[in-house]
Amino acid sequence: MYFSKGIFLIALAGFAEVALSHKPGKGPNRNAKRNFIMVIPDGFGPASEALARHYTHWTNNATIDLPIDKMQIGGIRTRSTDSYVPDSASTATAYSCGIKTYNGGIAVDDSYAPCGTVLEAAKAKGYKTGLIVTSRITHATPATYASHIYDRDIEDNIARQLIGENHPLGKPQVDLILGGGRCYFTPKSTAKSCRKDDIDLLGWAKSKAGYQVLTTRKDFEKKTKLPYIGLFTESHMSYEIDRDPAVEPSLTEMAIKGLNDLLAASKKEKTGFFVMIEASRIDHAGHANDPVGHLHDILQYNTMMKTVTEWIDKNSDAPTTLISTADHECGGLTLGYSLTGPPDYWWAPQYFAGAKNTYEVLAAKWKSYAGTDAAYLKTEIFGKYGVPDPTAAELAAATAGKSSTSAVGAVLAKAMNARLGVNWSTGGHTGVDVNLYGYGVNHLKMVGNHENSDVGNFVAQELGLDLKSITRKLQKNKKFIDAYVKPQGKVQKRDSCSKHVNEHL
Amino acid sequence: MYFSKGIFLIALAGFAEVALSHKPGKGPNRNAKRNFIMVIPDGFGPASEALARHYTHWTNNATIDLPIDKMQIGGIRTRSTDSYVPDSASTATAYSCGIKTYNGGIAVDDSYAPCGTVLEAAKAKGYKTGLIVTSRITHATPATYASHIYDRDIEDNIARQLIGENHPLGKPQVDLILGGGRCYFTPKSTAKSCRKDDIDLLGWAKSKAGYQVLTTRKDFEKKTKLPYIGLFTESHMSYEIDRDPAVEPSLTEMAIKGLNDLLAASKKEKTGFFVMIEASRIDHAGHANDPVGHLHDILQYNTMMKTVTEWIDKNSDAPTTLISTADHECGGLTLGYSLTGPPDYWWAPQYFAGAKNTYEVLAAKWKSYAGTDAAYLKTEIFGKYGVPDPTAAELAAATAGKSSTSAVGAVLAKAMNARLGVNWSTGGHTGVDVNLYGYGVNHLKMVGNHENSDVGNFVAQELGLDLKSITRKLQKNKKFIDAYVKPQGKVQKRDSCSKHVNEHL
Repeated sequence: MYFSKGIFLIALAGFAEVALSHKPGKGPNRNAKRNFIMVIPDGFGPASEALARHYTHWTNNATIDLPIDKMQIGGIRTRSTDSYVPDSASTATAYSCGIKTYNGGIAVDDSYAPCGTVLEAAKAKGYKTGLIVTSRITHATPATYASHIYDRDIEDNIARQLIGENHPLGKPQVDLILGGGRCYFTPKSTAKSCRKDDIDLLGWAKSKAGYQVLTTRKDFEKKTKLPYIGLFTESHMSYEIDRDPAVEPSLTEMAIKGLNDLLAASKKEKTGFFVMIEASRIDHAGHANDPVGHLHDILQYNTMMKTVTEWIDKNSDAPTTLISTADHECGGLTLGYSLTGPPDYWWAPQYFAGAKNTYEVLAAKWKSYAGTDAAYLKTEIFGKYGVPDPTAAELAAATAGKSSTSAVGAVLAKAMNARLGVNWSTGGHTGVDVNLYGYGVNHLKMVGNHENSDVGNFVAQELGLDLKSITRKLQKNKKFIDAYVKPQGKVQKRDSCSKHVNEHL
Repeated sequence: MYFSKGIFLIALAGFAEVALSHKPGKGPNRNAKRNFIMVIPDGFGPASEALARHYTHWTNNATIDLPIDKMQIGGIRTRSTDSYVPDSASTATAYSCGIKTYNGGIAVDDSYAPCGTVLEAAKAKGYKTGLIVTSRITHATPATYASHIYDRDIEDNIARQLIGENHPLGKPQVDLILGGGRCYFTPKSTAKSCRKDDIDLLGWAKSKAGYQVLTTRKDFEKKTKLPYIGLFTESHMSYEIDRDPAVEPSLTEMAIKGLNDLLAASKKEKTGFFVMIEASRIDHAGHANDPVGHLHDILQYNTMMKTVTEWIDKNSDAPTTLISTADHECGGLTLGYSLTGPPDYWWAPQYFAGAKNTYEVLAAKWKSYAGTDAAYLKTEIFGKYGVPDPTAAELAAATAGKSSTSAVGAVLAKAMNARLGVNWSTGGHTGVDVNLYGYGVNHLKMVGNHENSDVGNFVAQELGLDLKSITRKLQKNKKFIDAYVKPQGKVQKRDSCSKHVNEHL
């Protein structure tokens, strides 16, 4: 009963949203040269920023705000069509297409029909386009900007679409790609490939599509020119705190290189550029309930945002709009426990000062360590995670679990979270709103609390894009849709958000 | 003694203010008539609003936002001087005085010196002033607007200052009081009094200060004129879902009555009014980890905000600014658990539909029920809390704990939270930022993420208030400070926020 009503109303709402986004003449400077930078800190909830700010304040007792705090203009509601707790696929589709969809859907609507994205619509209008991430480039968030498929997990297919070797519009949509996830671009015969077929996407990109391909830090340092694809790791890039700068560029470095190259490439064009930059792994550390990885990826995101706003100020000849908002919260992070007496509350960011690596790296280091001595465990494993004083029980648990990185990781996380006084309520996402940040031309139009789908429509409006015409073109390609977008067999339909069954008790 | 000194100081202050008010350029509309409505939803974190919105969406599949969502303009940082996790006293002092202080301090700074509040400064300038709350009026948040004391718990003293029977400025500061907490205003000889002395504050208010005193719903319905004090319950007013409308007015009703009377009283004055309205008990339900009480006080807060904005639109002759922000998050509320399979997430607001009371009321009802039959327990206790299907174990636990309302309350809360899929990480506050909302004249000046102390200074700026001169007056009253503001003996100094010791492990 509720189910059918829900579907009906959601369908109506979707229609209204699409219709709204195509009203003509809805933004100023529709035909003037413009750039748009969309920054998505994946899994970055309201508590994430406070965590990083409190730590920074603790380090110097002077820093009361971080770079992005100055830019907050409101909040974003993240609900998807089938859940009050969204995933990256549904929310990034709201940002790329301006419509809400179901959890797992990559730039498709509830009936698996592809929706035109702001990146594709920008490309069609002559804008230069880019995707810059720290995850695999085939992960849900970047995927929703230039690929269309019913299930985010089919990354083989996503890689082909992203690079344009097999895209429903018939040609490459993305001029610049920087990030991780090379394994989906190399044939299965290659060592470390993640593909199930023998398609050599990097080879195709070079020989057939004129992409320059970068795979090393040295490549990254080269002068580059669009189009290019830089994939520096087989899977996700490293967490910022684990990153070896000699091997992988930082998110900030990738962002600035990308912006410079996009600006150069669009210098003589009538249109500017659209780029999506994702601080991808804030989310992964949230799933892992790892406060150390979470903190340092958040600080890097803040640094990148500061650098990007400085870049915008320096390059004001082509007016640029920056909008940044997470796709959803991750981990159910909260800050502080109650104590029975003064100081009443316990939240002690100072423990972060000693942390040098995520527990992922440290648990692997302990597993591969030849000995089992407590001194090494204490200083090189617990100590490097920010826990200088492990208890006998904690040492024993890490010794007993030595062969299992997940067991040792859990011991380390628990020890650190307890000392910090932070709490994670889940290994998944939660339904709280996320913060909205903006900078540059017209960003104040977005002051307020908005549906996530409003963000996609705002990008389209500001760049004068016609999402509907791209949607029409995509949906005309029925052969492609049948072969690559829709599920091949019957798919277990997810419940609507009003009909979850209770299996938690 | 204090009284005569007060008179002298007030005379001086009046002189200083006349001189000051002609300083040019200290804020816009300094001499124009203005009203300011400060609304504090106590303990209302980012997840609180999403919880209420999701439930409302579930009820009709159409409501995508609640009234306040349209008004979000940013966020507020809540840190106090001694903790990254604040309490209401420190944060409300930031809102009333424009300074940060330690947890527990009521309109005093870190050295226990009183700070001038926006309410006192408004009063000094001829504004009408009001406090409208659903807690005891002597609770920390309202206390910080018109009393000064080192410890929030000394409510005997706070009551005397609030009503002006013993205030460091020598006379009553608040023209209108509506809320709960009568027990601190009646002498200890009276039944239900909370006072430790025989001071009859309501008697004093009536006979010496010309206050009209309201104590019943019938009184509330009367035509009233400033000054008046309406206290409808001995302690806190009821949670909204438990409220008997024949006995207690709602927060919305009190807000509108208060606004109308403040407007009428300032009609012929050159200055308007300042009022602080607090949705006080969102916080208490957070401490109790009671999602039912939390939800309905949030919905009432939203209703009140909608009604107040309509009032502002209707009464635009005296331009009004509305700012609303919580003092801090409470409960570490998060929305949604992970499941092992589809639909992946579990957050089921539909369980709220059956809830008719807080667990506080239901646990007391069960305790006082003569029988122990499971049928009554199931339908009248669990059922009325929104749990139609208690398990055998849940029924057994509520039966075993029947004589203890806290034991049964915990059983009910656990059952409901698990079914909803919401999680509370603490019975206290947390350090996450809270949302900032605004409406009316100049509210867009506050777009952004601010320190909580910026809010108090914004009120002062908008109303052309001189907080410093009030602070000077207060601090000159050394006799009052020694007798009523400062701790009488040595007080255990709280740790600074960078120096917490770890006692949580």
